[in-house]
Amino acid sequence: MPLSPTDLGFIELSFEEAKRSLEQGGLPIGSALARGATLIASGHNQRVQQGDPIAHGEMDCLRKAGRQLTYRNTTLYTSLSPCMMCAGTIVQFKIPRVVINDTINFGGNEAFLRSHGIEVIDAAHAPSIDQMRTFIAANPALWNEDIME
Amino acid sequence: MPLSPTDLGFIELSFEEAKRSLEQGGLPIGSALARGATLIASGHNQRVQQGDPIAHGEMDCLRKAGRQLTYRNTTLYTSLSPCMMCAGTIVQFKIPRVVINDTINFGGNEAFLRSHGIEVIDAAHAPSIDQMRTFIAANPALWNEDIME
Repeated sequence: MPLSPTDLGFIELSFEEAKRSLEQGGLPIGSALARGATLIASGHNQRVQQGDPIAHGEMDCLRKAGRQLTYRNTTLYTSLSPCMMCAGTIVQFKIPRVVINDTINFGGNEAFLRSHGIEVIDAAHAPSIDQMRTFIAANPALWNEDIME
Repeated sequence: MPLSPTDLGFIELSFEEAKRSLEQGGLPIGSALARGATLIASGHNQRVQQGDPIAHGEMDCLRKAGRQLTYRNTTLYTSLSPCMMCAGTIVQFKIPRVVINDTINFGGNEAFLRSHGIEVIDAAHAPSIDQMRTFIAANPALWNEDIME
């Protein structure tokens, strides 16, 4: 299992960010960016809260991280598998490692990431999967808007 | 030539947005999103101005456009060819048509966009190309940071 205790902590943090967004009436998708054991930033989806269509969980986290001269020694944690926007961003930013809590409720871009040499780990985090599944069932229109379906 | 007078107007607008960013001390990259002849929003790179690494010209424009239920009848104009983040976003948002002022100073993702069925038009807008070339020559570190080199 390639997940360290550090990873497990940041997996929980991305889940907590997702939960925070849900409590705010938003989409329950959260993310964290870390350099080894050091947290750089965490964030969550802001479509509802800020009316911002580009602020997926990963994007909000990267925005909050501010200007980094390099991402080459970072890991991006995300509660849900990255869409094409976020996957493109991970490639562009040269983030070498991505840990995903949930590839069940959304997925498909893991192969794209791997084809760019990125290590992709499916953490199969049951609380994230359950929370997202429940949200989608209750809010299909909002979910479809967020993934542009 | 597939460029209409409407296109030419929005090409100028994306150039003007780039110029505005330059005047603010930022990267001279601008963008506009339109539905036919109707402007939805325009924006420009905000890396310097807001310390925001995800706010490339296209992203700032899409953020300012707010929540759109569909992008299927829109055109995205950009003063510089989209990076992998912005190209991924165009695919994710299902924007069907992209007009690029400058594929000389940066490029490479046109094939990726076309492989997703997107119409990509190289407008070869000399003022945009000249402005970007001059900026890169004078500010190599800022430019390299923006493209994560």
